[in-house]
Amino acid sequence: MSKAADDGGVPGGRGEPAQQLGGEAAGGKLASKLSASSFTPGWTKVSCPCCASERVEPLVLVKLGQKAVPETKRWLIKLIGAPQKDGGAGLLAHPGEDATGNIIVLSAPRCTLLRATEELGLCKIYHTGEMEAFAYNDRDNFRNSDNMEVFLTLAERQYIIKYELDGLRAQKDLRIPGLPDSCTLQKRDNIWQKLGQVGVVVDTFPLHNPDKLKDLSESWYSGNQLTQPLDKVNEYFGSSVAFYFSFLDFYTWSLLPPAILGLFIAYFSREVQREMLQSVSGSQEEEVQDEPDPLISGHMLQAVFSMLWSTVVIELWKRRSSTLSYQWGTLNLAERFAEPRPGFHGDLGVNPVTGRVEPLFPEWKRDLRMALVSVPVVGLFLGLVVLGMMCFYWAEARVKWLHKDWDSMISQTFLYVPSVLHIVYTNMLATVYRTVATSLTEYENHREESAYDNHLTGKILVFTFFNNFAVLFHIAFFKQDVPLLRKRLASLLIITQLVNQVTEVVIPFLVDRFISAPHRSEREDDPKEDKFRNQGTLPTFPPQGLFAEYIELLVQFGYLSLFSCVFPLTAVLLLLNNLTEIRSDAYKICKLFRKPFYPPVASMGVWKVAFEVLSFVSVVSNCWLLLLSPRLQKTSQEAGMSGSHLLVGAVMVEHVLILVKVIMAALIPDEPDWIRKKREHIEYTSMQALRQQVRIEVVLNASGGKTKEGQ
Amino acid sequence: MSKAADDGGVPGGRGEPAQQLGGEAAGGKLASKLSASSFTPGWTKVSCPCCASERVEPLVLVKLGQKAVPETKRWLIKLIGAPQKDGGAGLLAHPGEDATGNIIVLSAPRCTLLRATEELGLCKIYHTGEMEAFAYNDRDNFRNSDNMEVFLTLAERQYIIKYELDGLRAQKDLRIPGLPDSCTLQKRDNIWQKLGQVGVVVDTFPLHNPDKLKDLSESWYSGNQLTQPLDKVNEYFGSSVAFYFSFLDFYTWSLLPPAILGLFIAYFSREVQREMLQSVSGSQEEEVQDEPDPLISGHMLQAVFSMLWSTVVIELWKRRSSTLSYQWGTLNLAERFAEPRPGFHGDLGVNPVTGRVEPLFPEWKRDLRMALVSVPVVGLFLGLVVLGMMCFYWAEARVKWLHKDWDSMISQTFLYVPSVLHIVYTNMLATVYRTVATSLTEYENHREESAYDNHLTGKILVFTFFNNFAVLFHIAFFKQDVPLLRKRLASLLIITQLVNQVTEVVIPFLVDRFISAPHRSEREDDPKEDKFRNQGTLPTFPPQGLFAEYIELLVQFGYLSLFSCVFPLTAVLLLLNNLTEIRSDAYKICKLFRKPFYPPVASMGVWKVAFEVLSFVSVVSNCWLLLLSPRLQKTSQEAGMSGSHLLVGAVMVEHVLILVKVIMAALIPDEPDWIRKKREHIEYTSMQALRQQVRIEVVLNASGGKTKEGQ
Repeated sequence: MSKAADDGGVPGGRGEPAQQLGGEAAGGKLASKLSASSFTPGWTKVSCPCCASERVEPLVLVKLGQKAVPETKRWLIKLIGAPQKDGGAGLLAHPGEDATGNIIVLSAPRCTLLRATEELGLCKIYHTGEMEAFAYNDRDNFRNSDNMEVFLTLAERQYIIKYELDGLRAQKDLRIPGLPDSCTLQKRDNIWQKLGQVGVVVDTFPLHNPDKLKDLSESWYSGNQLTQPLDKVNEYFGSSVAFYFSFLDFYTWSLLPPAILGLFIAYFSREVQREMLQSVSGSQEEEVQDEPDPLISGHMLQAVFSMLWSTVVIELWKRRSSTLSYQWGTLNLAERFAEPRPGFHGDLGVNPVTGRVEPLFPEWKRDLRMALVSVPVVGLFLGLVVLGMMCFYWAEARVKWLHKDWDSMISQTFLYVPSVLHIVYTNMLATVYRTVATSLTEYENHREESAYDNHLTGKILVFTFFNNFAVLFHIAFFKQDVPLLRKRLASLLIITQLVNQVTEVVIPFLVDRFISAPHRSEREDDPKEDKFRNQGTLPTFPPQGLFAEYIELLVQFGYLSLFSCVFPLTAVLLLLNNLTEIRSDAYKICKLFRKPFYPPVASMGVWKVAFEVLSFVSVVSNCWLLLLSPRLQKTSQEAGMSGSHLLVGAVMVEHVLILVKVIMAALIPDEPDWIRKKREHIEYTSMQALRQQVRIEVVLNASGGKTKEGQ
Repeated sequence: MSKAADDGGVPGGRGEPAQQLGGEAAGGKLASKLSASSFTPGWTKVSCPCCASERVEPLVLVKLGQKAVPETKRWLIKLIGAPQKDGGAGLLAHPGEDATGNIIVLSAPRCTLLRATEELGLCKIYHTGEMEAFAYNDRDNFRNSDNMEVFLTLAERQYIIKYELDGLRAQKDLRIPGLPDSCTLQKRDNIWQKLGQVGVVVDTFPLHNPDKLKDLSESWYSGNQLTQPLDKVNEYFGSSVAFYFSFLDFYTWSLLPPAILGLFIAYFSREVQREMLQSVSGSQEEEVQDEPDPLISGHMLQAVFSMLWSTVVIELWKRRSSTLSYQWGTLNLAERFAEPRPGFHGDLGVNPVTGRVEPLFPEWKRDLRMALVSVPVVGLFLGLVVLGMMCFYWAEARVKWLHKDWDSMISQTFLYVPSVLHIVYTNMLATVYRTVATSLTEYENHREESAYDNHLTGKILVFTFFNNFAVLFHIAFFKQDVPLLRKRLASLLIITQLVNQVTEVVIPFLVDRFISAPHRSEREDDPKEDKFRNQGTLPTFPPQGLFAEYIELLVQFGYLSLFSCVFPLTAVLLLLNNLTEIRSDAYKICKLFRKPFYPPVASMGVWKVAFEVLSFVSVVSNCWLLLLSPRLQKTSQEAGMSGSHLLVGAVMVEHVLILVKVIMAALIPDEPDWIRKKREHIEYTSMQALRQQVRIEVVLNASGGKTKEGQ
């Protein structure tokens, strides 16, 4: 073990002082203080004019490309270290092993962290013990504001570094040193984006903290825990990831009631089991005629229960979500008031909300682009899905007919051709669509990261939903073939789960145990830099990483709620699946990928809406499926009801259920009472501050003071 | 004309100085200055330590009861005049003709008005020309803040007086002078409420301003104006009334497209006219068989148009409403942060939002009361409506049968008995329900006036809606008798309008011209006090005044949207009705009643929701009615569609229409882009102020300052 490794995770073990060059040209004082205090190996005991910290922890690694000559690297380190008022990022940069290496290790001083905390609008614990929106000027009244490693979570500290890097903008036209003349920056160009485009920076990613990771994984998935350490997840991966796991946790537990009801119904009406066997073996269900009533009422009970249950779950989740958001300090995020996202472009102008000069892009133009470009293109792709499905059915009928005609080995293999072609087509379409959706959302030019995410997610979601459920809806509503639907659903549920378990648990485990692990152990005594570098060899967490997890849940939820009355044991299967899913997802994000950057968020965003929509669509589909149920039709015929009467009855039941769901959703408050009070308290204090401020200003003006920043 | 009448509406024409006694005991300085400056007749040139005004206008009249002896009156005037920090109302009080008379005329000094403007959260024009939340400390930066008659509207000035009176609370246990010992005030008792209960104060109402009223009425209803002077209405009657008239205006103009479409359809399918005649004369429509297709498509076009139209209108109204709210400075009302409404009671405690000591009442208790008391009671009354309807149908059938049997004069008169009894029953039920609803809402113990109003309105609304539409729905959905529905609807529309025109235009006009007017003219040269007193002889504007007007519009809107496909000329009739309705309502509120107190409001409140709900219910009812249409059924039978197919088709159309409406409602933003920006700007500045304030506080603390009010 090198000496540096003992130093508590401090890089620069070769005794080289931190290269805080930034200030020498621009800031002056800051840099000289920083270098003066870095006698100890690495970055320990660094201080800046406004704050001092005991030690500097390596937070983010920047990997430079081949284009970056040492001159470029020096310039970059200088830029990163320069104070923000001089156009720098106000961060601490360390060149790794030496000035020619291709990595830069980044950390952040206390003042930069605190200012960014205020800018992001994070809430922190005030000295009264309540969460309050952090204010830099009032920092001494916040608990632990002298110890950044307690005050901010690891994820927040790392995100702040990304935030500062993304916010770097050229203050004047300049040439990037060491690069050809063609690589110049125009005034207000986004520097970090440009550096990525020209190949100077190839990668920026947050570093894992081995000790914390070990601690987290032990309390998360190594044992037989029933609860997840959500606060620790938030601390380590940030609120985006923590919200996903909270929802997964909440949703899994909420599957208990429908699972129990499903088991109950399955047990007491032995019919169901017989019928399932029949449906799997493909036979029609004409024989089942004895005691149909209890089964029907069981099915209907199940359906009505699951329809109302989904609304209750979603409403309770909203409450839970706002509680978590309060605990994690993201209730009051100020993204709207911050700088626009790096990819945003527009004519320079004065932002009417904040009064800052920044690129502006009119709302109506964005709306126009969405209406005239995005909507038609998305519609086109949905049309292609339907077209594919129709071709598939046509081809299947055709092939069956051919097989009947020829009845040879060749025609037998032909039977599989339509399915294979359809799967290939669907997958290709999905890949193309993903690229198109990204470009469309980029073209829509959203100002905020969250708006961009929501619009991109929304687009992909509509498509994925369509892709997954179009066939099932077709079977249910056009073919009106309940046994086929049940067969299809059962196979989907079982196959999807098997595939998931294999791809998410078995393969990663094998890879980790037999391929990655040997490599890793032999490097135990490498210098820190190499360890950091090694993290770069892990695959990046897929940019749509959480998206894929959410969509999995949504599709599950769709099977459960849309077709619940067809297959009563869905909830049981899903419950079992999710209990392993929690562990495999946790394992995946901890061990198999680089640590991802995720911004602090206040909720699940657009996903909540998707689940809500699904829960309303489920009423329509369940009522329809119950209506189609051959046994219900038989029963009603025996009772002397005509088909029309049955239909009118189903429509009425559907309307009443939707009404009940709407009323329930309206009556259950979206946030607990105590959170509402806290939120109102924050609003009240800021209203009071606005009223106060002016008075104090007046007082100061009267006594000759010159603090007019509030205007 | 007396001298006082020339003085620009100044009371106290008998040269008596204003009795500003309040301060003598409690405030001291304020009162002595006030009385020192009141040499001129009446209240002209009054000044208080912080402000001076050129003249004092009489705003509110308090009428005392028989119980109020001169001693009580003196005490009351003293209390009203005392500064707020001493438990007074900080207003200007004048005893009318002398200290023994039974009226007190009230006005308000500038500082009270300005402080209340801040407390209410009204926005006013800043020196930059933008609307900003008014802050007392920053008053000099607001335009016209030295001239209260321009800065605040008349309605606001008068409401502020009511607000201050309602906010009077006993600072310690005390006996009301001149009253028996039983009439004591406990600490924190609401004084004004108590005075009303014991009969000292019998009436408090705002005074009309004859000049302004004349000006308003000339530009409102005297001529043939097509537009209403909404800003003037807001200035004179306040935003509650102005919102009603704005909505009436907006709604009337939005009737143009359906009215034109209705005329168009009626003209081009001459069938419709024939058919209307037939349906009015009661014959079934079996003869109409030639060219049914254009008529059906016309009806369907009308129905689909009106369903989508209603959503567009409501969404556009939301935008208009928020624009008006911005213009009238009520976008940012701070009712939540103000003192609770006078009727609110609870245990004293610290409000977690504002940190003030005030009565608190837990949310869960209110929810429990609503769930266990209000909901069952309202349900009971709705059940009574249905019961009444059922009894009516039973009795009608019974009477017809009797008439058939006997066929005499007596049995002929019996035919009318059920209708008469039903009308009597319905009206009695409505009266009882109104009382019950008020007690229930009182019992629910809402903290804010607006919450109280919304819950009361909601309760009465559900009942009235049920009462008005139950019979029509019964005919449409159970009897499934379209011709009867059409007949009923036509008679309702025509009778309701005739009754309205008579009660709202003709009778008031006659009363005003032949009964009130002669009385009024003979008193032209009375002293001011008597004129004020005369206003007290006018009937009070009914407490449910605006409510009745809104419900009229809602019922209209219901006829139009719920049954539009049955009677295509509804929109034309309603348009004509509303054009006179605007004028008659304006005339009524200006001339026939005392001026009402209405608080400033930011929107129509619960009414918007009612219109929205109706617009969604209309999809269900229209689809159903189209389905019932005998001609559609004949056409579809000819086309070879079974009843079930037709039904499935109608359900699909209904679902698609509801989906389209939901999407349209979600896509059209509820406020214009520029309002959103202004609102966000207000939020941003108050967030900035919160961050700023602390710093300034720190600076002040460091320099020994002691301004810590922000905490």
